[in-house]
Amino acid sequence: MTSALNVPDLIRKKRDGETHTRAELEQLVLGYTRSEVPDYQISAWLMAVYLKGMTPQETADLTLVMAESGEQLDLGDLPRTVDKHSTGGVGDKTSLILTPMLAALGLTVAKMSGRGLAHTGGTIDKLESFPGWTSELSEDRFLAQARAIGLALVGQSRDLAPADGKLYALRDVTATVDCLPLIASSIMSKKLASGAHTVVLDVKVGAGAFMRTLEDGRGLARAMVDIGTRAGRQVRAVLTDMDTPLGHLAGNSLEVQEAIHTLRGAGPGDLTELCVALAVEALAASGEDEEQAEARARVTLQDGSALAKFHAFIAAQGGDATLVDHPERLDVAPGRAEVLAPVSGFVGRIDALSVGRAVLALGGGRERKGEAIDHGVGVELLKKPGEAVQAGEAVLRLYHRDGRGLDAARGLLEEGLSVGEKAPAPEPLILDRVN
Amino acid sequence: MTSALNVPDLIRKKRDGETHTRAELEQLVLGYTRSEVPDYQISAWLMAVYLKGMTPQETADLTLVMAESGEQLDLGDLPRTVDKHSTGGVGDKTSLILTPMLAALGLTVAKMSGRGLAHTGGTIDKLESFPGWTSELSEDRFLAQARAIGLALVGQSRDLAPADGKLYALRDVTATVDCLPLIASSIMSKKLASGAHTVVLDVKVGAGAFMRTLEDGRGLARAMVDIGTRAGRQVRAVLTDMDTPLGHLAGNSLEVQEAIHTLRGAGPGDLTELCVALAVEALAASGEDEEQAEARARVTLQDGSALAKFHAFIAAQGGDATLVDHPERLDVAPGRAEVLAPVSGFVGRIDALSVGRAVLALGGGRERKGEAIDHGVGVELLKKPGEAVQAGEAVLRLYHRDGRGLDAARGLLEEGLSVGEKAPAPEPLILDRVN
Repeated sequence: MTSALNVPDLIRKKRDGETHTRAELEQLVLGYTRSEVPDYQISAWLMAVYLKGMTPQETADLTLVMAESGEQLDLGDLPRTVDKHSTGGVGDKTSLILTPMLAALGLTVAKMSGRGLAHTGGTIDKLESFPGWTSELSEDRFLAQARAIGLALVGQSRDLAPADGKLYALRDVTATVDCLPLIASSIMSKKLASGAHTVVLDVKVGAGAFMRTLEDGRGLARAMVDIGTRAGRQVRAVLTDMDTPLGHLAGNSLEVQEAIHTLRGAGPGDLTELCVALAVEALAASGEDEEQAEARARVTLQDGSALAKFHAFIAAQGGDATLVDHPERLDVAPGRAEVLAPVSGFVGRIDALSVGRAVLALGGGRERKGEAIDHGVGVELLKKPGEAVQAGEAVLRLYHRDGRGLDAARGLLEEGLSVGEKAPAPEPLILDRVN
Repeated sequence: MTSALNVPDLIRKKRDGETHTRAELEQLVLGYTRSEVPDYQISAWLMAVYLKGMTPQETADLTLVMAESGEQLDLGDLPRTVDKHSTGGVGDKTSLILTPMLAALGLTVAKMSGRGLAHTGGTIDKLESFPGWTSELSEDRFLAQARAIGLALVGQSRDLAPADGKLYALRDVTATVDCLPLIASSIMSKKLASGAHTVVLDVKVGAGAFMRTLEDGRGLARAMVDIGTRAGRQVRAVLTDMDTPLGHLAGNSLEVQEAIHTLRGAGPGDLTELCVALAVEALAASGEDEEQAEARARVTLQDGSALAKFHAFIAAQGGDATLVDHPERLDVAPGRAEVLAPVSGFVGRIDALSVGRAVLALGGGRERKGEAIDHGVGVELLKKPGEAVQAGEAVLRLYHRDGRGLDAARGLLEEGLSVGEKAPAPEPLILDRVN
């Protein structure tokens, strides 16, 4: 890697709003990953990127440089590989339902997933509600399982896009996290390195999401779709509301229970519609007619085919699959408490962030990587926004373990709840689509 | 130092264009000086400062925090202390003349000076043309000498504004050097820590200066005067042209010779006028009438009083003061070469930066700190811009040692010289004053 420019010159270019070549991004990012370029130069550069931005081509180049900075999963000749990513929400058990749906539809999901942090849950944490289930598979076993049943899920490798991991750690301590090209390239570098041909993105917008406004969410969705397209992948994004938690349950075992109900065709409307919509995007990305795709997707929740894939998947990764048939046997914390409507009226707001933080307070999430969590605790939305309630009627239920974190969780929920005289205007769950 | 904000929050504030309190600047800058805040956070903050700026109050606060980060010189009860700073030019031997003038005028100059770097010379290098002269004095001896003769000059202490030294090193490798509040606070932190009540600034503008345009120079001058005023000092700035070298000679011993001629009242007009103008600013800062001050300043160059102070000063710091009486005995390199006018006409431009680089090429300056230099080499301007020349007539003379760097120096000088049909419009030396 020879270049006429030294690192301060490269920083100067971005400082002055100029555009980097791919070779320049390699010099900076791979140099940093190999510890040849010091962190104090990269952090100055990150701030310049934050304040001056990046063109779509620069963002795509940065993403490819990060994706190629370490191990890249070769999904080889697996048929119709598809990956899904959510930017993170509260009560978002979509992956648990969508991935077996996609397998039932003939696509292959060979996916890496993460754990939850702060108020957002992680798919691996939720799946660990099944005793014995493991996210640690050898690459051979992972690929063989994906080929056999169309669905395999492992924890994220440390060597997947190591440049992203290193850059993210630096962004975290230098106030350069919430920067669109850096967010988009961070997410997409891992998706590109994970090897799937099609990627479906669920960009959450609202109080409980990283993106607070539809405009910001749309910008992120467009940036990620653009990166994928420039990298030769099929990428589609759906923008969905995250003011209120998805479905009725938040907390690991509780969400698994709700996912199984949904896989049986008896799930809440919002959750079912989102899973169908994401499945349609995945099918449409490979050219299927959208109406037909929607009909096929709905059938997988009615005919037991998606549930059967989930059953096989849990069993294949060592989990107790009898719990798929008897989800009521999943460990749910025995303590119960309720938040009541202060007045009669209509539920206005159940703030997703408050619910996420309440689950965290009860012990169902982690503040720092590596912390153990209680899979059994959580929050149930007995009512959703727009429903009528009487004064003193229960709106939210807490599932706690020996009262741990109960007062804090209750306080958060009370603060996040509003009951008013008028029903709020119903808001659509799916706000926009970008492809 | 307790604060509600952590470092990323402080970086975020500046990133978003907000204003720091003095306590916040202390947290960042003193934390960094003590190695409690890591360089990668400070470099991100510096880039945010570069791109978002600082208010005058923030800049003054930053300067005070840096000034107070280490040793501060206590000039105690020395009468009418005055310091002078030039932003750096070519052939700028002003300090050699001005400081004995100020001593002769009854002011006290107890000054720290630096060495030259790249194409700009340093006062200490010039004074070391006197065999035996030393810039290393104990604080007691320094103060006693300042009291006795009104003039003492030492090298800059390493512990003077250590925050500035550390920040400057980081700015140098993160493309955050040429940022007005950071430049102004860097210069002024050392001036404030040096203790003088009055500070006269010579802000150079033009091809051979750090500030290329009058507008930039004015901005820097205003920022520095503002800092000084907020810190309770008397600060005045003069903006002077540095398109062409000052006087006729560049190079250490050569500049000392020219300074001595000027102290005898026989110096070049531009140099004499600048020294008088700076002396007037120093006197006017403490309330003297400007016309009277000018007359008094000129007298010191006519009656030998400034020369006598210079003589005493060189002797007091161990130098061979007989050379002040016989400047022709100073070691000047014996080699001679000339750059000739390519056509007949008028000298248009003698680029200061080219002359500075030519002296450097001849061995009269250093690229890196600590390098030894040849005090005897240099360049003489036989003609100044506006003067008529015949084709083949010598315009510039090089003083070289055994031909070292001669070709490179000649090439630089030829490139920086223009001779045209018309005389250029005369430009004033003193472009503006700020106080």
